[in-house]
Amino acid sequence: MRALTLVPGDAGSLEVRDVPEPEAGPGELLVEGLVMGVCGTDREIVAGEHGRAPDGEDRLVLGHESLGRVLEAPDDGGFSTGDLVVGVVRRPDPVPCGACARGQFDMCRNGRYTERGIVGRHGYGSERWTVEQDYAVRVDPALGDLGVLVEPASVVVKAWAQIDAVGGRAWFEPERVLVTGAGPIGLLAALVGVQRGLDVHVLDRVADGPKPDLVRRLGATYHVGPSGGVMDELEPDVVVEATGARQVVLDAMSRTSHYGVTCLTGVSSAGRGIQVDAGALNRDLVLENDVVVGSVNANVDHYRGATEVLAAADRDWLAGLVTRRVGLDDAHDALRARPDDVKVVLDLAPST
Amino acid sequence: MRALTLVPGDAGSLEVRDVPEPEAGPGELLVEGLVMGVCGTDREIVAGEHGRAPDGEDRLVLGHESLGRVLEAPDDGGFSTGDLVVGVVRRPDPVPCGACARGQFDMCRNGRYTERGIVGRHGYGSERWTVEQDYAVRVDPALGDLGVLVEPASVVVKAWAQIDAVGGRAWFEPERVLVTGAGPIGLLAALVGVQRGLDVHVLDRVADGPKPDLVRRLGATYHVGPSGGVMDELEPDVVVEATGARQVVLDAMSRTSHYGVTCLTGVSSAGRGIQVDAGALNRDLVLENDVVVGSVNANVDHYRGATEVLAAADRDWLAGLVTRRVGLDDAHDALRARPDDVKVVLDLAPST
Repeated sequence: MRALTLVPGDAGSLEVRDVPEPEAGPGELLVEGLVMGVCGTDREIVAGEHGRAPDGEDRLVLGHESLGRVLEAPDDGGFSTGDLVVGVVRRPDPVPCGACARGQFDMCRNGRYTERGIVGRHGYGSERWTVEQDYAVRVDPALGDLGVLVEPASVVVKAWAQIDAVGGRAWFEPERVLVTGAGPIGLLAALVGVQRGLDVHVLDRVADGPKPDLVRRLGATYHVGPSGGVMDELEPDVVVEATGARQVVLDAMSRTSHYGVTCLTGVSSAGRGIQVDAGALNRDLVLENDVVVGSVNANVDHYRGATEVLAAADRDWLAGLVTRRVGLDDAHDALRARPDDVKVVLDLAPST
Repeated sequence: MRALTLVPGDAGSLEVRDVPEPEAGPGELLVEGLVMGVCGTDREIVAGEHGRAPDGEDRLVLGHESLGRVLEAPDDGGFSTGDLVVGVVRRPDPVPCGACARGQFDMCRNGRYTERGIVGRHGYGSERWTVEQDYAVRVDPALGDLGVLVEPASVVVKAWAQIDAVGGRAWFEPERVLVTGAGPIGLLAALVGVQRGLDVHVLDRVADGPKPDLVRRLGATYHVGPSGGVMDELEPDVVVEATGARQVVLDAMSRTSHYGVTCLTGVSSAGRGIQVDAGALNRDLVLENDVVVGSVNANVDHYRGATEVLAAADRDWLAGLVTRRVGLDDAHDALRARPDDVKVVLDLAPST
């Protein structure tokens, strides 16, 4: 069967290759791959900046945003042939830390986890794949291929869970949220904000393309402009930062209202300094009892929450997030970002 | 009677003056002032940088770290003549925010609170003062004058409560804590860490004076050196930042271990930039699920917790925190910081 593979660390190695058929072990599902979502992490791996093949292998099968249909399922696990499923990305180390031992592998303390399609495990970018039942999540069939949004939505559900947890240390009835960045994570974070009845604002640097309309169709407000000015104008109770851009991150941290909660979800590059009034940043965080919480990855509970968020969303709006759908043969094209991309997905079905 | 007063905003105005005797209203205690603690906020007020007199008055009675003995108490409030008491600093606005309405005025959202000896209310720096019973906390008589440490300890108890709350969003069994700054807040934070059975480390910039010995007597480890190196060496699970120094704050935010919790308690001056790799800071916070929480002030529950922390501490060690005791007539001297100061207290009893 065909799979999208590369040699981690080798920027020119992305290639669709024939690989052996997977075999489902005990407690595992055999799944027909339908679509695979592409995100910035995939592009980093393709660029040779990130990723690790399984031990003893040279090539890694890419793909951590999955959607497939069950071909074979064990009798006892609650899955049936034909179910739409998404596979969870991260697996704890066999010698788990205290968090991993409790199913909170998204909060791993020792860093020895593996991740499908990223670190030490093959991904979901193949015509067929297997997954342990305990790391598979069933998707409402009405969602269809939009189930590929479960993984990014799981990251957002985890981020909101962090906001709830840190906000809940005292009275917390937020009214206004600012989401910085109108990519898939930002737009899904805005969706959750709207589902919660909040006054949702989204800031991005582009004034055209599909993003402004997607935000407006949610009933949220779209902003373009310097993040500092928008923060000062809105005084949001909650900020979900999804750009990773240095100045936006700093504004998101330092310009909330009293008892502000800033959740950082964007991964930025290190290596370049900017001038920061660190005294003012500290003073603001202390005197306002502000919190900044970083959030990455998601555990099985967050995936389940993500299926609920998507099931409750407008189907047409979700479909608007998928701005390109590309066949496996055009994978190189899918993995090159275009300015108007929101979510690009790869079609894993054999072209007929 | 005599009181330590000044005109907020006027750096040369600190003066011990005769002021009218206070009268206890309904539900209030009349208290004989015993000692008043001096902290950085007092020095900022004396320097004209901070503070506000009560509406309609020019002068503010200084003092928010209090200890007194009850002279008169209502029949129904649970206080008796002779009780040692500490007065709470902050009062909510008559039109409270959602947090203030729930007694969480330390988490005030609208900033319209008043604070005794700081903002809009006379302080406790007088031979006699009154306090509402609901804002008075009884102190174990065995503590004696060391009860003046209840207010700074309340700030520390609140900070630890924030650490527990944000740390508790997933599995959290911290082992190592680094406290940056060996002033009263830092040392009391270290005390709480030791009381919790943690491996406690304290970083300060001075290698001599009373601080190293105070840390060692706690059973904690004293460090002098650049904060970045100490952070990297220790990889603490929790950092309590109590210096407000720019570089220390940034290192405390960005160099914790996975799922690190950094609690900022030091108030720094704004206005000077330093070069910061904001991308690396953000990346570290996100990929490690780190939290940075600012913490200021304390509510009545934290004051009660503080009396328990002090009651459980070694009395001689606590006495070692009070490095100068100065009469009211020498208030100017008390309010000038010396390098070896930990806690300076003013004796409010009339000199005989």
